[in-house]
Amino acid sequence: MTPDTRFTHAAAALGCSFDGEIKAGGNYLPLRRDGHTLYVSGQVPRIANTVVVTGRVGRQVDLHQAQRAAKICTLRALALLQRELGSLSQVQQVLRMTVYTQSDEGFTQLSEVADGASDLLHEVLGEAGRHARTSVGVYQLPKNASVELDLIVAAQP
Amino acid sequence: MTPDTRFTHAAAALGCSFDGEIKAGGNYLPLRRDGHTLYVSGQVPRIANTVVVTGRVGRQVDLHQAQRAAKICTLRALALLQRELGSLSQVQQVLRMTVYTQSDEGFTQLSEVADGASDLLHEVLGEAGRHARTSVGVYQLPKNASVELDLIVAAQP
Amino acid sequence: MTPDTRFTHAAAALGCSFDGEIKAGGNYLPLRRDGHTLYVSGQVPRIANTVVVTGRVGRQVDLHQAQRAAKICTLRALALLQRELGSLSQVQQVLRMTVYTQSDEGFTQLSEVADGASDLLHEVLGEAGRHARTSVGVYQLPKNASVELDLIVAAQP
Repeated sequence: MTPDTRFTHAAAALGCSFDGEIKAGGNYLPLRRDGHTLYVSGQVPRIANTVVVTGRVGRQVDLHQAQRAAKICTLRALALLQRELGSLSQVQQVLRMTVYTQSDEGFTQLSEVADGASDLLHEVLGEAGRHARTSVGVYQLPKNASVELDLIVAAQP
Repeated sequence: MTPDTRFTHAAAALGCSFDGEIKAGGNYLPLRRDGHTLYVSGQVPRIANTVVVTGRVGRQVDLHQAQRAAKICTLRALALLQRELGSLSQVQQVLRMTVYTQSDEGFTQLSEVADGASDLLHEVLGEAGRHARTSVGVYQLPKNASVELDLIVAAQP
Repeated sequence: MTPDTRFTHAAAALGCSFDGEIKAGGNYLPLRRDGHTLYVSGQVPRIANTVVVTGRVGRQVDLHQAQRAAKICTLRALALLQRELGSLSQVQQVLRMTVYTQSDEGFTQLSEVADGASDLLHEVLGEAGRHARTSVGVYQLPKNASVELDLIVAAQP
């Protein structure tokens, strides 16, 4: 299977479709390219116009739901990369991912939330999907999203 | 009008001047350059020696004040780029901006705060100012600033 | 003294040893390299299998302890760079550091916490260790760590 096929399967398994264009609302871009380096904007777990996992992780949202949120964020980032590059097989390597979790005060399983995203990157991209990572627990996220993440990616030269 | 003229107008409209040198206090730098890539340190809404917008957004500070804070942070970043590059017309493109807002627990309009910064980048730099963006709500910022943001920028080759 | 010797001295002064391999737990990497650019994953103040400084800074942890935590995080990042590059003399410059402090609501000395890390980078690497920096106060960190930080570094060509 190609990365694009694995992406389609992973999206279907999570009940997601990204066929419409993913737009940024203001004077910014979902993705900015500098030569072979691609900067992907922070993605929340939105499907169509709805953020599907909201609330504080460890209080309204449990670890499993937060991991699902992280996977949906990752799928959105991959959809943007696929649209930019034509195919996910053009991803040379994912360089960095930063995962922000809207946490409850005592919730420390931030690496475990981020594992949802890392596992999906590896599932779709294989070794190219392995990345440097930072996971932090923040106080609030846009539209009350439970998770937000961004990527820096190197494309094939 | 050139980007430098638009910068001067935008700074005047917000009552800011950055004629003095903008220094970092410790063993770090306001800006680090690697070839054509420029990393700008986190900027708070400081004018001269005073952080002019402080406190938690959604509690002590409203959206409009937070957007003004984001604009002042952006002006500081642009002042650093102008000093480094000689002219803001040497900015090829802004690659990434991360906007941190000191939020109240229930304040979710973090994208709207960041729009203040994105709009100013676009106003001064035009299409070159459009960027990938991440907006998060944090618990505390240096000197109780309401907003902090950093940039990665590509200079003209 | 070489950077490697200074690293050994700094680690000994803080009671740290990183002789074992520093592994990442999941489908990610402690460090990802793209040509001469190195992305180091978020480091917490862990020695062997124990996070040695935990809790909220300004409440359970004071500034001095938080600065020590920031230094240990930095030593871990340097250990990863040394392993990747063979020697810390191969670091051309540190480009960006982001320092996340698990803060109490009223704790605003986030730059002062980050100074612990910046001072150590300068102590070990000299001018090459001076970097663009962003310091923020977050709500929670993995394993209840008091500080987490990540780096982007340029290697000698």
